[in-house]
Formats: sequence, structure tokens, C-alpha cells
Amino acid sequence: MMKCTVIFQPSGRRGIVDTEMTLLAAAREFGADIESPCGGAGICGKCKVRVEEGSFQRLGIESKTDHLSPATEEEIEKLGEKEISKNYRLACCAAIKGDVMVYVPEESRAGKQIILETGREREFFIDPVVKNYYLEMCPATLKDQRDDFRRIKDMLEQKYGFQRDIILDYPVVKDLSGIIRRSGWKVTVSIWNEKEIIKVSPGFAENIWGVAIDVGSTTLAAYLCNLRTGETVAKKSMMNPQIVYGEDILSRITYSIMNEEGLAKLHRAIVEAINSLLEALAGEAGLVTAEIVDLVLVGNTVMHHIMLSIDPQYVGRSPFAPAFKGGMNFKARDLGLKINSGSYVHWLPLEAGFVGADNVAVLIAEEPYRQDEKMLIVDIGTNGEIVFGDREKLFSTSCATGPALEGAQIKYGMRAAFGAIEKVIIDPETKDPRIKIIGREGWFKKGDEPLAKGICGSAIIDVCAELFKTGIIDSTGRFNQQSASPRVRRDADGKMEYVLCYAEDTSIGKDIVITQEDIRAIQLAKAALYCGAEYLLEKFGATSPDRIVFAGAFGSYINKESAMVIGMVPDCSLKKVQAVGNAAGDGAKLALLSMKKRREAEGVAQKVGFVEMASEPDFQIRFAEALAFPHKKHKFPSVDYLLDRAGEKDGD
Amino acid sequence: MMKCTVIFQPSGRRGIVDTEMTLLAAAREFGADIESPCGGAGICGKCKVRVEEGSFQRLGIESKTDHLSPATEEEIEKLGEKEISKNYRLACCAAIKGDVMVYVPEESRAGKQIILETGREREFFIDPVVKNYYLEMCPATLKDQRDDFRRIKDMLEQKYGFQRDIILDYPVVKDLSGIIRRSGWKVTVSIWNEKEIIKVSPGFAENIWGVAIDVGSTTLAAYLCNLRTGETVAKKSMMNPQIVYGEDILSRITYSIMNEEGLAKLHRAIVEAINSLLEALAGEAGLVTAEIVDLVLVGNTVMHHIMLSIDPQYVGRSPFAPAFKGGMNFKARDLGLKINSGSYVHWLPLEAGFVGADNVAVLIAEEPYRQDEKMLIVDIGTNGEIVFGDREKLFSTSCATGPALEGAQIKYGMRAAFGAIEKVIIDPETKDPRIKIIGREGWFKKGDEPLAKGICGSAIIDVCAELFKTGIIDSTGRFNQQSASPRVRRDADGKMEYVLCYAEDTSIGKDIVITQEDIRAIQLAKAALYCGAEYLLEKFGATSPDRIVFAGAFGSYINKESAMVIGMVPDCSLKKVQAVGNAAGDGAKLALLSMKKRREAEGVAQKVGFVEMASEPDFQIRFAEALAFPHKKHKFPSVDYLLDRAGEKDGD
Repeated sequence: MMKCTVIFQPSGRRGIVDTEMTLLAAAREFGADIESPCGGAGICGKCKVRVEEGSFQRLGIESKTDHLSPATEEEIEKLGEKEISKNYRLACCAAIKGDVMVYVPEESRAGKQIILETGREREFFIDPVVKNYYLEMCPATLKDQRDDFRRIKDMLEQKYGFQRDIILDYPVVKDLSGIIRRSGWKVTVSIWNEKEIIKVSPGFAENIWGVAIDVGSTTLAAYLCNLRTGETVAKKSMMNPQIVYGEDILSRITYSIMNEEGLAKLHRAIVEAINSLLEALAGEAGLVTAEIVDLVLVGNTVMHHIMLSIDPQYVGRSPFAPAFKGGMNFKARDLGLKINSGSYVHWLPLEAGFVGADNVAVLIAEEPYRQDEKMLIVDIGTNGEIVFGDREKLFSTSCATGPALEGAQIKYGMRAAFGAIEKVIIDPETKDPRIKIIGREGWFKKGDEPLAKGICGSAIIDVCAELFKTGIIDSTGRFNQQSASPRVRRDADGKMEYVLCYAEDTSIGKDIVITQEDIRAIQLAKAALYCGAEYLLEKFGATSPDRIVFAGAFGSYINKESAMVIGMVPDCSLKKVQAVGNAAGDGAKLALLSMKKRREAEGVAQKVGFVEMASEPDFQIRFAEALAFPHKKHKFPSVDYLLDRAGEKDGD
Repeated sequence: MMKCTVIFQPSGRRGIVDTEMTLLAAAREFGADIESPCGGAGICGKCKVRVEEGSFQRLGIESKTDHLSPATEEEIEKLGEKEISKNYRLACCAAIKGDVMVYVPEESRAGKQIILETGREREFFIDPVVKNYYLEMCPATLKDQRDDFRRIKDMLEQKYGFQRDIILDYPVVKDLSGIIRRSGWKVTVSIWNEKEIIKVSPGFAENIWGVAIDVGSTTLAAYLCNLRTGETVAKKSMMNPQIVYGEDILSRITYSIMNEEGLAKLHRAIVEAINSLLEALAGEAGLVTAEIVDLVLVGNTVMHHIMLSIDPQYVGRSPFAPAFKGGMNFKARDLGLKINSGSYVHWLPLEAGFVGADNVAVLIAEEPYRQDEKMLIVDIGTNGEIVFGDREKLFSTSCATGPALEGAQIKYGMRAAFGAIEKVIIDPETKDPRIKIIGREGWFKKGDEPLAKGICGSAIIDVCAELFKTGIIDSTGRFNQQSASPRVRRDADGKMEYVLCYAEDTSIGKDIVITQEDIRAIQLAKAALYCGAEYLLEKFGATSPDRIVFAGAFGSYINKESAMVIGMVPDCSLKKVQAVGNAAGDGAKLALLSMKKRREAEGVAQKVGFVEMASEPDFQIRFAEALAFPHKKHKFPSVDYLLDRAGEKDGD
């Protein structure tokens, strides 16, 4: 047998092989990753490579085609005459006859880097926990009575190098023999964690689907991903139906304790909601839910417990120890979740107390543990979670911010939806506001269609910041009685309020106002966040963050400057403040698409030091101090801040 | 700290320890196994040892009690004053103060040897797959917010040396926190295979329960065992309710193919039957089924497939490849079996085709793979399985014996129950029979209460042998027309028959007869068994077995001599023929009580070479030859046989 040199570009991997070896086999031998979902059976067409010209002149080669076996029927069918004429080949079909150099196009490379589109770009290698393996087996005969499962194991070893004992999940067992025989002994097996066969599909199944869900107290956000390509093919979100049992997690714990079957009701509500999201996602992608083979869930500790039917009463009261913190895999069928019945549901690990798997997801998305800069991550939901640290150490805490920052418990508060006032600037002279409304471009002008229905969280923070900057409220948050503007007035009960939008400019026929109580609610929320950040900085031994990241859907809308003005977070250059959207959702997706990220989650959940604010002796004092606008430690208005602001205005 | 010498008897294990170490800790260190279900918490009282006298004189010891800490309150409570005065102590409480020698009584030794009571004595070490571990944990505090599961893992590591990652099954998760807190942070965890926590019980749970079931085509036999002591605390059996869908396995396969929902009906029937057996066993032992934490099932390949809801059509036709052969663990809840919901059901491995897990169970009970003698094991059920071999090699085959040997498809056939004729001898001169009836002592005499209702399998074989020996039938099985006895007569249709019992001596008011067709049915059954044995001897390269074992409930009743006379098995000294009862049931129990036996099953199932009789080219010829009484290769009546017979008669 002749020896030939093979070179793969652009990796430059090379080596010497015997003739007749396929390009795919050579690529595996020399570590040049070529994608091959069908395992080299010539049916998926994904291992396309291009035979390179020119480079072989120094090896004295005249015609590259002489150095590979002729194109097979499969290749002509998969690639077409045109690509064949451009020297494309399938690596699994082309046998080496002489020295050859091939180029592996980006699309054919295994372990592609994928960029998630939500929030920000995050690069990682696709390495899902569930993978597909295509197998062609010899039919059973009287001379070869191996059982069907043995046949699968033997092929997995032979074709994919599986060494370890693979187990078979019960639902797979039932129709195994039937599927194998009806599909002519050609099947695709889906293997979880290189350990367990959780699905057997007839013939070649190229794509493989998984779902990541951020189970928020208020909102569920779900993503359907192709586990082979990393692509997000559908997104859906819905309100958490548990809201009817309580707005926040503490009230839901109370509900579960005070009501017979309380936990069962909460549990059922969330399971049904997830099932309807799964249905919707599958429907949008033209799939059935049984095709979804992996599911990653993240959420706070209470959502985690309730979703798993674990009594949340103990995690709701001191000393707040959860039933378990580690990342866990449970069978979807045990939880009543309607995906492929053999599949697992993976809950990312919890950090501690109220800092849950959603925060761990934020961490694996933002990777503060890889940064030299000291990062403050503020995830604002109905419950606020804060993390501070760098590659050396990390601390986290949880703050009961309440739903005010999301527009709830605010007189005209509403979610960030059509008709919500989302941005506010108040003129320091006239005290009149300029507003932006979701659903229309630009600032609202007199005479525009009256769309305003209420105020969403970002505008509430804007209003507080602007009312303070323009002197309409003082640093204690109280209305300035001497304000000359007609917009500052008393309501029927004599309580002070500020009119943000007169009735004729609204779609609700009522003046949209900010009340003294609204401002109080914001003060309580921002004080909780500020205190939390302050404790974390202290534990770490830092005086200020190098960078602040707002995570959470709400974080995307927030006006960073307003947040700084009202003293929601410690001082930081505005250029270093960033909103990253639903980082928890991104983290959940990462854990769905990458085994490495899933392991990383386990590590970071254990690494983060949890700070229990309530057990700090001076918490009450600090909290009271933090209620003021801005926090007394703020250097505002600092030169830095003003410079930042000048720079920001243009981009506004 | 002082060094002391400690000696454990009767093992003789010894070593030097620091003072204050407990006897239990010292025993562990030196490998002297002392049972300690509560892990040394002083609450189970199982680690009782006796401080020895005399032996220490050479060490210059005067008073043994000086060399141990004084008896604690727990010891006095558990042992009582009387035992304390006899120098008994609890090894977990007694701290070493000086040189000491203790005797570990049999009852306190871990890894006791247990003798099963069914069929024959079998010795083995108890080492169940599910074990209990008692844990006392520190309550959670604000300073120690470890999650509950972490706390359990930490204690398992600390107290029992668990190193590996233990996982937690979903049903355990739900009430984990509640159980731990309600029981004052003292729980017993049941761990499966040193891998997974499948149950958490409040406080100290000393005993642990498992069930082994032999799922026969006709009969289910179930045993409830204490997994700590090995004791069988309850036994139950019942008819396989699938019988309404077909008498034998082939007719049940046909039913599943021909009827919509056929498999589902068969599956449901067997699951319900097993559940009712579990209920009955638990009831008899004063338990609830949720206290059963392990379940081992054995049965033939078709029972195995149907019980697991696997379509049996492929295993029922050539090339007979099963869905899987290896031993498998499935969650009881996935199969609808009502034991502890986190528990596994273990099916022992199959050998091949129709040689199922029941036969593997027989093998681990009889251990032919440990014998120098060449053993022929004949397990007679509705389907007959035969194994032949020794420590070098083993071969097996399966024979469609049909239900005739069990009394079915025989005109007056019945199961071995009250009123069944179980034993027959025919006088060579008078041609009159002597019969024994189940339910009364001794041979039936004229004038005795007429109890006879029918003939069970053992008597049918007796009758055939006796009819042949007395010349009433010839070697082809046909009635001798010249027989002078009035008992040999023609029925209304002119067919020959032999009257075994006249109507007045029966409780059914009819003559109990043996028909020509009955004899044909026995011939077919015995020919199948004989042929099978012959092929196995040939494959092995042996001319005769050194020993024959009849397994199966039916095997216990069989008259070895009659079986030999009719040519059911190859020649063998009668002294070397033994009936061992339900060896499959014993094997199932062994797999329940011993991890080692379970592993052994896996090994032997792979080791046995399966012989597919139907694919042997000369099968039809051989089968026809084997129909004769006795088989033409029989040396009967040999000197050996006659000697054996003379010896046997006394014991009859």
C-alpha cells in the first residue's frame, strides 16, 4: 500500500496515510475537525471539502483529481454537478489515492463558534449534552442473534469510539425493535451526556432540538435551539401564571403554606405554562414537542423549588437553606413536562438562598470570573440579584426590590408594552416633561395621536431622576411645596403628585401622574439594590466597580444616567455601564448548547460567596441612608459624570 | 495518648490503636466486620460484642473492664443489666482504654452467610444492591446554609466513606426538606448501588425490604426478603392472569400480534398481578408496599418483553433476536409497579431466544460454572429450558414442551393440588395401579375417602413409565391390543384407554383414565427435552451427564426413575439425579440479596452458548426417534439402573 501526504486547510493539520483511507478518516486521525452528523455514511452531505489548487505544485502533482477516488453517486446527488466541477467533495466518500490538500470550509467545521443574538454577542463552541449518532446495522440472522441493543452498542463503539457502558432509558426500550426493523436497520440514536440513549429515531435525523427557559417570577422566556447549529429557531414568552397566587416570591411561599394544595396548584400552573410554551415553540418551528430532546431551566430559588414540587417554606425563612443547590437532571416525564419522554430536564445550580439558577445563568453569560475588571452585575427582576467581583473572587446577594421597578405597584405603572411611556426628560425651567412612548418614533409632540396608557419601569426611574434634578422633589423624595409648575399639584385627598401627561394626550382619558407613594416605592427598591451593592463591595474589599452590567429584560430599557442619579448603584463611569438584556436566558441557552458551560455553571455557583444582607447588623441603618436621592456617597454631579453625559447626549 | 492492642475474635484481626477510639472504629480499621446499621450512632444495638476473659493473662491484664470506658446509658438500655453483667458491650459506645480482646458473636458480624430455605441450601454473603445508611446532621443555621442534600452527602462521606457523587432521585427531592426537619435532622437514606438515593426515611430505619419474583408463563412466585438479614419473611404465588390470552408463550405472542391493544392487555395483566402480589406480601409482613425498596424479576424472554411492554413479535420468530439481553434497571414507577417510587426493578439478563432470565436465575442458584462435574439442568415449565456444562463451558437450549408435563392438555390432567393423583405404580401381574393422592398420607386403599379428582404431571409420567414397563403400551406408545386387564379398554369412540381410578374411588363420579392422546402429548414433550439434551451433550463433546438437576416447581414432584424410564433425559445414575425446586425463584432471591450474584448473572448469561434446535438440519429425524419409550439410546434396564432402583425403593 502506498503512503500519501494529506493536508487540511485552514488548520494546517497534516499527516501521512495509507491509500484508500477516506478524507474524513484522515481528518479524524490528524485532528482536523470536519462535521459529520451521519458519521460518514454519505447521506448528510455536511462533510463538504474543497480540493485545493496550486499548493501541490511543489509536490509535483499535475491533476488533483487523480489523487482522490472518483466522485460517487452520493456525492453527485448531495453536491450537484456544479459543486463537483468546483472541486468540492464529501470527505466521507473521497478515498485518498495520492498526496492531496483540501480546504475545509467554515460550514463543514465541527465545533463552530456561534454567536447568540440576544442582548450581546457571546462566542462559544457548540457541544450539547444530547448528541445524535447515525447507525447502519447488519440485520439479525440465525447466525448473528445479537440483541438489538447490543447491535447498537457495537456500532457506537465501532463507528464513534464509544468505550463506556451506554444505558437505555425505559421509554426507548418499548419500540426499539420495531423502529430498527421498520427503518431497515438504520437509525439515529440520541445520547445524553455520552451515557444514556434517550431516543431512537428511524433513519438519519440530521437536526436535534433543545429548549432553554428562564422561569421568572413574572415572565417566562423560552428559546428553541437547534443543538447541531446553535441557531435559535423560535422564541416565546408569557406571563408566569402563578401571579394569580401572589405577585412576588414571598407571597407565593405564603400562598403555598396557607392553602391546602397550595404548592400543588403553584406547581401545576408552572408546569402547564412551560408545556404551553413548548407547544408554541415547536409549533412555530414546525416540530412536535416529542422532537425536543433537551431542556434547560433557570429561575430563582423559589421558582426552582415550586417547579420541582419542593415545599418552599424552608427556603423562605431563616436560615433559608434550600433542599439542594447543585445542578440537577430529572426525567422530563417525572416532572410532567412534555418533551421527548426519555429526555432530562436540567436545572442549573442555585447559588444560595434567593440567588438562584437564573443568576448562575447570568454569570456564565457574563463571565465575571474571567475578568480583570471588577464587575457589578445587577439583575433587576421582581427580586433583584447582585453579583460583584472578578476572576479572583465573587460575591452575591439578593434584594427584595419588589415589582415597582417593573412598573407594578405604581399608580399608572405598566409593563414595557405598547402605549407605555418609556423615557422622560423634564425641562429645568418650565418643569414640563418630554416623553417617549412605546409604539411611536421620537419624542411625543402636542397633536400626536394620544397613545400613552401608563408608565413603564424605565420611565419611572427617569421621572424620579428628573424630578430630583429639577428640584421638584428634594433628596428625601418629598415634593417641594413651593414648586410653581401647575403640573405639581394635590390630588383629591390632598396628596402631592406630578402630572406627566394630561388626559387629552392619553388613550385612557385620565391624567397620568406620579404620586408621592410611587416615589416612595422606587426609593425602597433602589435603596435595597444600593445597599446590596455596597455590602458586596465591602466584602470584596473594593471601593467602586470598574464596570456595571444591568441584566434582565428591564435592564435593557433603563436609562443608565437616571439610575445613577437616583442612586440605584454605586458611582461608575457611564461609559462602563452596559445593559445586556436577558442574560439569564442567554446563560440558559449556553448551558443547553455547551457541556462546558454547564460544568462552568456548577463551578461558579460554588465559587460565589453569598452575603445575607438581613443578617448584617447595620442593615437597617444603611438601608435608611440609601433611601435618599442620590445616595449621600454619590459624587454627583462629578466632572466625570458631566463629561460622560456630554458624550452620551449625542447617541440618545 | 497511649497505644493499646485490640484483638477481635473469632477472626483474629488485631492491631494497635490510640486510646479513646471505639471498638467499632478499631474493628473497621482492622477489617473485623461488625454489623452497624445505624452507623455507630448507638441506637440500633446491633454491634454487640463480648469482652473475652482469660486470653489477656499473658498481657498481664487483671480486670477487663478497666480497659474500656464504662457502659453508657444507651448500652444499658439496649443490652440490659443482664447482658452487661455478662461482659457484653456495644462496639460503637465502648472506648478503648487499654489492651483488650473482644469476641464478635455470629449475629453481630457483617456479611453473614445465609441459607435459603427453598429447594436446597445455598450459602452466600448478603450484600444487597440497596442499603440503608443512618445519618445525624447538624441543623442549618445562618452561618451554615449548606443545602439539605449537601448535608447528606457530607455525612455520607464523613461517616461511611462515600467518595463518589451520589445522585438524588426525583421523588425523594420533593419532601426531602420536610422529612429532615420533622425528624430532627436524623434520617435513614436508602442508596441504590452506591450511586443514587432512592428513599429518605425519618429517624433510624433498621430493616430494609426487597422482593424477588419468578414471572412464569403459568405461575408467579414471589418472595419478600429482609435485605439486612437475608430472611424470607413472606411468600406468595398466583396464576399468571395472561393465561386467558393464551396457554403458552407462543399463543400469547400471537394474541399480541392479532389483537389491537393485545400487547397492552397482556402487559397490564402482568403488572396488575405483580402489584397484587406485592400488596399481599407486604400485607402478610405488616408493611406497606412503599417500604419495598428493591425488586428483582426473572422470567422467560417473552414474559420479559411483555412485562416491559416490548412488542414480542420479533423474539417470537426467526431469527429470534430480543430487544436486549443484558440485565437492566428501570424505575418501578416507569413500569407502573407499586413499590417505593424511587426504586429500581432489576430484570436479570436473558441468555438468548427463549432461554430467559429465569434460566439465568437457575444458573446462579445451581452454579454449574463452578462444578467439575458435567451438569444437566432441566427446568420444566410450559417452556422447557436445558443447560449442560461445567466450569469450562456451558450450552443451553429451549424446548417447546407444551403444558402436558404440568397436567394441562391431558384429559384428566390437573395442577398438583388437593385431590390430584401424584404417584402411580402398576402391578406387572394384575395390571392394577397403586396411587397416591395429594391431601392424604400413604397409598390409596379401597374404602378410603374418594378424593381423586385428576392426575398431576408427576403421576402422568409415572403412568407412562409403568404402562410401558408392564407392557400395556409398547415402545411406540401404542396400547397393546392383547392386554387382558379390564382396565385397558376402548372408549365410546373406540379409542384405547387405561382406567387409573374407577368412578366410585373418585370425587368426580367419573372413571379417571389415561388416553392414547395423553400418552402422545407426553411423548412429544419428553422427546423435545431429550433432543435438547442430546444436542447440548454433542456441542459440549460429552457422552453423558455426570449429574442431572430437575428445576422448577414441577421438577420437585417428578419421579426420577419414571422420567428416566420414559426417556425424558439421557442416562445418568439415579443417585446423581436431584430435584431442586424453584431454583429460578432462589436465583432471583440471590440476585436480590447479593450484588455479587447479580454481577455473576451478567457474566454467565454471556458465557452460555445458545443452541437453536430448530436450525439443526437433523432435528426432525432426531425428534421422531426420541418419541419412543424409552429412547433407543437408553441402556435401560441397565445394571446401574437396577442397583439404583433397589437402593431407591426403601426411601420411597
